[in-house]
Amino acid sequence: MKSELAVVLVSGGMDSCVTAAVADQDHLLAFLHVNYGQRTERRELKAFHDIADFYNVQSRLVVDVMHLKQIGGSSLTDERIEVPGADFQRKGIPSSYVPFRNANILSIAVSWSEVIGAQKIFIGAVEEDSSGYPDCRKEFFETFGRVIRLGTKPQTDIRIITPIISLKKSHIAIKGMELGAPLHLTWSCYQSEDVACGRCDSCALRLRGFQEAGIEDPLPYVIRPKYR
Amino acid sequence: MKSELAVVLVSGGMDSCVTAAVADQDHLLAFLHVNYGQRTERRELKAFHDIADFYNVQSRLVVDVMHLKQIGGSSLTDERIEVPGADFQRKGIPSSYVPFRNANILSIAVSWSEVIGAQKIFIGAVEEDSSGYPDCRKEFFETFGRVIRLGTKPQTDIRIITPIISLKKSHIAIKGMELGAPLHLTWSCYQSEDVACGRCDSCALRLRGFQEAGIEDPLPYVIRPKYR
Repeated sequence: MKSELAVVLVSGGMDSCVTAAVADQDHLLAFLHVNYGQRTERRELKAFHDIADFYNVQSRLVVDVMHLKQIGGSSLTDERIEVPGADFQRKGIPSSYVPFRNANILSIAVSWSEVIGAQKIFIGAVEEDSSGYPDCRKEFFETFGRVIRLGTKPQTDIRIITPIISLKKSHIAIKGMELGAPLHLTWSCYQSEDVACGRCDSCALRLRGFQEAGIEDPLPYVIRPKYR
Repeated sequence: MKSELAVVLVSGGMDSCVTAAVADQDHLLAFLHVNYGQRTERRELKAFHDIADFYNVQSRLVVDVMHLKQIGGSSLTDERIEVPGADFQRKGIPSSYVPFRNANILSIAVSWSEVIGAQKIFIGAVEEDSSGYPDCRKEFFETFGRVIRLGTKPQTDIRIITPIISLKKSHIAIKGMELGAPLHLTWSCYQSEDVACGRCDSCALRLRGFQEAGIEDPLPYVIRPKYR
């Protein structure tokens, strides 16, 4: 019998979907989604609700934080900056990095968790085989965990869980299949909202992962380049 | 000649006003204000702009984060919970604690600082002689500083500065007078927006500070109890 409540950050992409599948194994679930003015906000929100319906999650919080768009500085939130294409050799941080986004999102998750009594926050960040965002590193989450202990009530006990942080994208796809995660309900494309472009950084990482795993990605794509 | 840019978190209260006065001594200023659905939001925003006008600050960011009100759990954001009165003997955390608020606010400040190139974030948190909020402790800010280093670009260098964290309220009032801070433009009351109530936790801490400092508080009050 599940008794412990976990907040799961569900963007609507495959990483957060597989993370939800892991959390679902032995937790009661509450789903948090953050709209931050990203290009494909509407499509991601649909994916969030579809995944929440799939897991029969009643406790949902959808938050609009417009400040990340006001602040800009990323191709995801500023239309004047181009979304980067696939570049697996890239050194440095791509223009899709939204400054300090994960700290903003985690802070919301902690506030909510403290009020509803959740003891874990699941986040589908990926360090290896990822886009190179600084706020996706293990050390970042470990240190944020210390901030949670210091910045909440003494009786509050909230831990950050990153179940897929060390996995390659192909392993995430395989894990998702094994756990019966509804990958057909997810959305990953940074560029478009109807048919995935197949070309942006996020599509490329996803397609390569499925190709390496030898699994057919269930989403529709404009084009499916071979990335492996 | 000032060259370094600092973001100052200006709620509109006396602590943030004195903090702005400290930052103004040797920094170019950018002011950040966060509306989070607190009871006296409108009055605090006016104080923010009045203080920004006083220091001739052009770069202002006003952010509406409605999620702290959605989440609730505090007398500041949930009308069903009573605002605590003065109780200097209180043990534990008062109902005016907004869960993990300072992490939410600092995260916004870091995102903005990274985009505009600010190297310092000034925040007027007070640990001693304060309300006992866990997210006002030195350790919290020190550890958050480590999260900033880990979660932003390698070339980003942002430090959190808490110039009044160890001061008693009376010393903050004196420091404000010495620096010519516009304390008459500030707002501290948690309860009302026209004339300060004089009774809530925040009014009581403020009035006691001025009384201990032997300075007349320039704000209008419904009643000015003797708190020392």
